[in-house]
Amino acid sequence: MSQIKVKLAHSEALKFAAELPDGRRVELDSSEKMEKAFTPMELFLFALAGCTAMDVQWIMERQRQKVDKFEISVNGTRREEDPRYYETIDLEYALQGQELRKDAVERAIRLSQEEYCSVRAMLNNNVKFNIIYTIQTGNELPQKYTYSPKK
Amino acid sequence: MSQIKVKLAHSEALKFAAELPDGRRVELDSSEKMEKAFTPMELFLFALAGCTAMDVQWIMERQRQKVDKFEISVNGTRREEDPRYYETIDLEYALQGQELRKDAVERAIRLSQEEYCSVRAMLNNNVKFNIIYTIQTGNELPQKYTYSPKK
Repeated sequence: MSQIKVKLAHSEALKFAAELPDGRRVELDSSEKMEKAFTPMELFLFALAGCTAMDVQWIMERQRQKVDKFEISVNGTRREEDPRYYETIDLEYALQGQELRKDAVERAIRLSQEEYCSVRAMLNNNVKFNIIYTIQTGNELPQKYTYSPKK
Repeated sequence: MSQIKVKLAHSEALKFAAELPDGRRVELDSSEKMEKAFTPMELFLFALAGCTAMDVQWIMERQRQKVDKFEISVNGTRREEDPRYYETIDLEYALQGQELRKDAVERAIRLSQEEYCSVRAMLNNNVKFNIIYTIQTGNELPQKYTYSPKK
């Protein structure tokens, strides 16, 4: 589907209920007591990380690379002044699998970052990315690599 | 807090669990049966809408404008080709309140769009916005206005 519709309704203070047409919903808030709600900037990081995570998972499968474990850690650092966007986003892809090849992992990340990730493709140069990835093939410690964008 | 950390862990197929350090979590997926999960692009729209919703709510309070009801509708249209970002985002702010002034509403939206909204400030020109707002002060039909960015 190429159209996505969302409705937000205010409840109290800075609380809003966000809902999709099929009823799936998330509570949004910005306060000390968040309970089960999320801030917009938290949801943004979920969206960004989820987008590239799914790309990499999908591309690794197409490359017939067996991934036993896959985690992504994201650390967003906001500006102190308004607008308080993420001026830096540190992104770490951690993959485990006996037969993982560095070139295949790097290629999957590159395809996501430069060609597939829809969230990434909407971001401007206000946001600087630091991207690393780790590969663990056996019982040794994970090997760590820095990803450098070509563009 | 100026740093936000998120961790994603792969479970199966394109399913990932996204978690914040305090344990709040969202399930991410991309399939026909979404159950309680969200796609990254759905979460992105929640983030964008939530960001400007909170700004406008906050600014209206500072302007001592009493808002009885406030909803935002967002309609994102994705590209057909990769990366499938939103090439158009239609945003509608719907406000109700006896004493609402058009200039105050327009000012709140402008401040959010141009100065405060952190998510908005990270977006590039791939994304075109169509923004309208409606104001209902009494029992008449809501009045509809088009918002034009100054920048």
